[in-house]
Amino acid sequence: MKLDLDNTADQPVFRQLAQALKQKILSGELQPGARMPAETALAGENGIHRSTVREAIRALEQQGLLYREEGKRKLFVSRPDTEALSRRLVTPMVMNRVTFEEIWEAIRALDPAAAEAAANRRNVEDLAALDDNIARTKAAMGDPDALVRLDIEFHELIALAADNRVIKSLRLPISDLFYPSFQTVMTSLNASERLLAAHEKILQAIKWGDADEAKEWMIKHLNDFRKGYELASLDITGPAVLPKMQDR
Amino acid sequence: MKLDLDNTADQPVFRQLAQALKQKILSGELQPGARMPAETALAGENGIHRSTVREAIRALEQQGLLYREEGKRKLFVSRPDTEALSRRLVTPMVMNRVTFEEIWEAIRALDPAAAEAAANRRNVEDLAALDDNIARTKAAMGDPDALVRLDIEFHELIALAADNRVIKSLRLPISDLFYPSFQTVMTSLNASERLLAAHEKILQAIKWGDADEAKEWMIKHLNDFRKGYELASLDITGPAVLPKMQDR
Repeated sequence: MKLDLDNTADQPVFRQLAQALKQKILSGELQPGARMPAETALAGENGIHRSTVREAIRALEQQGLLYREEGKRKLFVSRPDTEALSRRLVTPMVMNRVTFEEIWEAIRALDPAAAEAAANRRNVEDLAALDDNIARTKAAMGDPDALVRLDIEFHELIALAADNRVIKSLRLPISDLFYPSFQTVMTSLNASERLLAAHEKILQAIKWGDADEAKEWMIKHLNDFRKGYELASLDITGPAVLPKMQDR
Repeated sequence: MKLDLDNTADQPVFRQLAQALKQKILSGELQPGARMPAETALAGENGIHRSTVREAIRALEQQGLLYREEGKRKLFVSRPDTEALSRRLVTPMVMNRVTFEEIWEAIRALDPAAAEAAANRRNVEDLAALDDNIARTKAAMGDPDALVRLDIEFHELIALAADNRVIKSLRLPISDLFYPSFQTVMTSLNASERLLAAHEKILQAIKWGDADEAKEWMIKHLNDFRKGYELASLDITGPAVLPKMQDR
């Protein structure tokens, strides 16, 4: 594979090579799953040293664009997992001690947009999954842990029904950061009835295809949660309650 | 450093070690910049093999939590760069051919929230920077390329004035994906007067501390842009115009 490299350019050749290969992956010329040309071939055809090729390949591996089977030498093009990558934002956000208020504002921006889009694009399976979630929520009224899990699921199902992959990925790290606070609020206040009522209103509006109403109820629901946080005597401007971190 | 590891657990020891070290970094016990204990010390004190320690360290390096100076062996704790990490989402989003509509819906969720927060938290420097941006926009009315750059800057300044690090990071990949389309619209339609008028209304509302008005004008501004995209005969449900990718 002959690539357009320039020995006299400011940018080091390995970086030019990495960028040229990345461009081929982004444009679809190199598809996920495709075998990469061998190091020796890339070096020979472009008149560059093998160590330069290796450095470019390492950069692309770090970006999750190339994949090598454990202990083997064959390299394949891979597609970085958007959701896993998005969730990696949780770590620096925790290290930067983001506040509950910052997280809440972000989820209050994204989830009403998801509810609105869900009302415009809902399909039968999405509605069935949401109905099922509400039925299980009704059965779990006395169990705060179950309610928190069901609430996480409800909001994820809304994002799924919204059929927007950008919103779906971006809300993941905030959701991970948001829910430990939620657990605290649910166990210290008796908020289960209000939660169920709001979820029912949101789903109803989505079923009717009433995007404005779905959005408004989602906003009310999230405003309610913020009030709950304050009623539970938590400081909204303090660092958010830390999630139990999984190794990602 | 003695850590709590369990040889009989399901999880491999290297992963337990990585997780235990990550927890110490997240809790602040190991601060960014701190020197990591040596491989041999970690292996000896925890009664594990050096190769296990090395594997754990590699996992943390990949997550950007440990840093090693080029060619040296000393390891330091580092804080992953939230914004750089967030921007890495652009690559898989492009590979997944996200549509203009998905990107637009996400920015339409985040930027009005940023305008609202900016009206609540603005300070003198933020307002001066926004005033300066508007003055330069007025001077660039006939220059579509300059207008696109100034618009990117305007929206970033709003996110800065919002003083919300979560929203600020999450909007970066969408902004990167959004602006190539914007360039197309600006050069094919004469939208500069409407853009300036909207920016002025948004800034005015922020100055008055009128959060609702700031939010509403941001929504109008973004709705306008979507209309422009359609008027320019671009398909909102097609893949977004691809950005020129930088190597990140």
